[in-house]
Amino acid sequence: MNRFLSACFKKPVDRPPVWVMRQAGRYLPEYRQVREKAGDFLTLCRTPELAAEVSLQPVRRFGLDAAIVFSDILTPLVPLGVELEFSPAPHIANPIRDAADVSRLTIPEPWSGTEFLDETLERVRSELESETALIGFCGAPWTLASYLVEGTTSRSFTKIKGFALSQPDAFEDLLDRLADAMAAYLRRQVEHGAQVLQIFDSWLGTLGAEDAPRWALAPATRLLEQLADLVVPRIYFANGGSHLIDMLGDVPCEVIGVDWRTRLDEAAARLPDHAVQGNLDPGILMGPPEIIERRTQAMLAKAPRSGYIANLGHGITPDVPVDHMAAFVRTVQEFRYDRD
Amino acid sequence: MNRFLSACFKKPVDRPPVWVMRQAGRYLPEYRQVREKAGDFLTLCRTPELAAEVSLQPVRRFGLDAAIVFSDILTPLVPLGVELEFSPAPHIANPIRDAADVSRLTIPEPWSGTEFLDETLERVRSELESETALIGFCGAPWTLASYLVEGTTSRSFTKIKGFALSQPDAFEDLLDRLADAMAAYLRRQVEHGAQVLQIFDSWLGTLGAEDAPRWALAPATRLLEQLADLVVPRIYFANGGSHLIDMLGDVPCEVIGVDWRTRLDEAAARLPDHAVQGNLDPGILMGPPEIIERRTQAMLAKAPRSGYIANLGHGITPDVPVDHMAAFVRTVQEFRYDRD
Repeated sequence: MNRFLSACFKKPVDRPPVWVMRQAGRYLPEYRQVREKAGDFLTLCRTPELAAEVSLQPVRRFGLDAAIVFSDILTPLVPLGVELEFSPAPHIANPIRDAADVSRLTIPEPWSGTEFLDETLERVRSELESETALIGFCGAPWTLASYLVEGTTSRSFTKIKGFALSQPDAFEDLLDRLADAMAAYLRRQVEHGAQVLQIFDSWLGTLGAEDAPRWALAPATRLLEQLADLVVPRIYFANGGSHLIDMLGDVPCEVIGVDWRTRLDEAAARLPDHAVQGNLDPGILMGPPEIIERRTQAMLAKAPRSGYIANLGHGITPDVPVDHMAAFVRTVQEFRYDRD
Repeated sequence: MNRFLSACFKKPVDRPPVWVMRQAGRYLPEYRQVREKAGDFLTLCRTPELAAEVSLQPVRRFGLDAAIVFSDILTPLVPLGVELEFSPAPHIANPIRDAADVSRLTIPEPWSGTEFLDETLERVRSELESETALIGFCGAPWTLASYLVEGTTSRSFTKIKGFALSQPDAFEDLLDRLADAMAAYLRRQVEHGAQVLQIFDSWLGTLGAEDAPRWALAPATRLLEQLADLVVPRIYFANGGSHLIDMLGDVPCEVIGVDWRTRLDEAAARLPDHAVQGNLDPGILMGPPEIIERRTQAMLAKAPRSGYIANLGHGITPDVPVDHMAAFVRTVQEFRYDRD
């Protein structure tokens, strides 16, 4: 078992594995080159040769412990009938407004409509060494529902909350469909080479403790439970969820990903049955390399001694200099757990 | 002493006072009418007759316990030499990039350049009954610095964090200047009729526990300490700061405002020396009135028995129906503390 998988299962490792959310992204000149060749973002996602290439670029450059397959959390909504565009923010031409809209979301059975990703996964897997893990992913039901109801990236999330409160049955139906669709989609990713699965709940932080359990954690649980028979570790990225840490212990997965607002030592203490992933503030990568090193060391000092995956607390931003990313990764790679 | 001021000082009241952030705003048809007459947003802020009118509108309609003077947190930056526009998001034509930019920010002494607000405050105060408090406000240094360095509303806050890490002396100078300028600005608001002061740290939630103390809480403290000789209560709105609750007890003010991610009972327990303000999720106002009532009652049940001001956890959004706002306010107004 490689370092990444071992850490997910809280087995001993020499040092924490490291990868970075959005590691295949615009901060890399070689990514921008491929992105330009592809033309638009969705074409890049749907062209296995190019998507595989950008998935592999950061692994080649930094020697990361995992590749994440290049795609977007919204692409698997297209097989459900969602009309999706990026310009560059995502726009949904047929947003969900009522129960009838929800009932039109039909899950292909067996899952189909994302065959491009099957091929991308296979290409990436065949190029990776066995010590490098391949991560598949999807969006969590609450996060996907937010896009579907708001129609685009929102600041206030009032449409979705109004929908959830005014049409609770339709909303529950929506969350159930998204959970079941994403479970089928992730299962297919495993069939084609994904060895780890990450569920991005990017908008979890918009919910207070009254609503997060029913609107976010319950549907994420429904999704994750359908994957329990697979041997792959599951990571639930609880973005913005520092105030919900006492509720995350019940999420059926191996790893909880936390952002930089969550204290890593507190997360580990509150989640004794989970491995923890995170959590350097991506903004720190804008500072000088010596500060990046110092802050990464401080992060590692706060992290649990077993069951820990080093990462940023959110995606790397396009303005980060490549050598700053390198300083972060190298600091983790040079770290060693003391042997007691 | 009226109900609002009593609650700020943790004195007995019959029920919690209630007001709402952005209560003078686009959800009100009478506001939209005045806004249209003014033309653009900055003109509305700078025309005392119109600004006073919109400040008073929600008090007239809902019988709120406080009016907040209509303005924007960025308007007092103009006297420092900042070139500000709204289109409709704020844009700063001369953003701060280095120490020289910071050194050009000069604080008028005595404070001047916001005379329009003096008149607005006087007009509002003269129209209010004595039981209604008048709130003056400003942005906190971290929040204002974010706009000054980013140049507009940001999602990732990488420019300001890069600036803070790469040019720490210039950044500290910037925070100090903003703290001192805002202290002078708030003092002037009190001279012209403000009876309560709220400091909005709208972007506090972008900082983890490593950086919030030095970049947000220390400069906010510097600002607040300069107002300690005034008799007016000071409210620090710690937006997004649920993960910092154990640090907020040291902020020198009478009231801590919290958002809906912070549990109200936990906030009160962790802040025994402060009154607490908040915190219904503004998204709840998009639900049916009976749900708004139930959720408001639940909020009141969680709130401390003394030293509590009812509010939303963030500004009311433009899409809220007026009768939904009314349901929220009425539920608080009908509540009574039990007499033991």
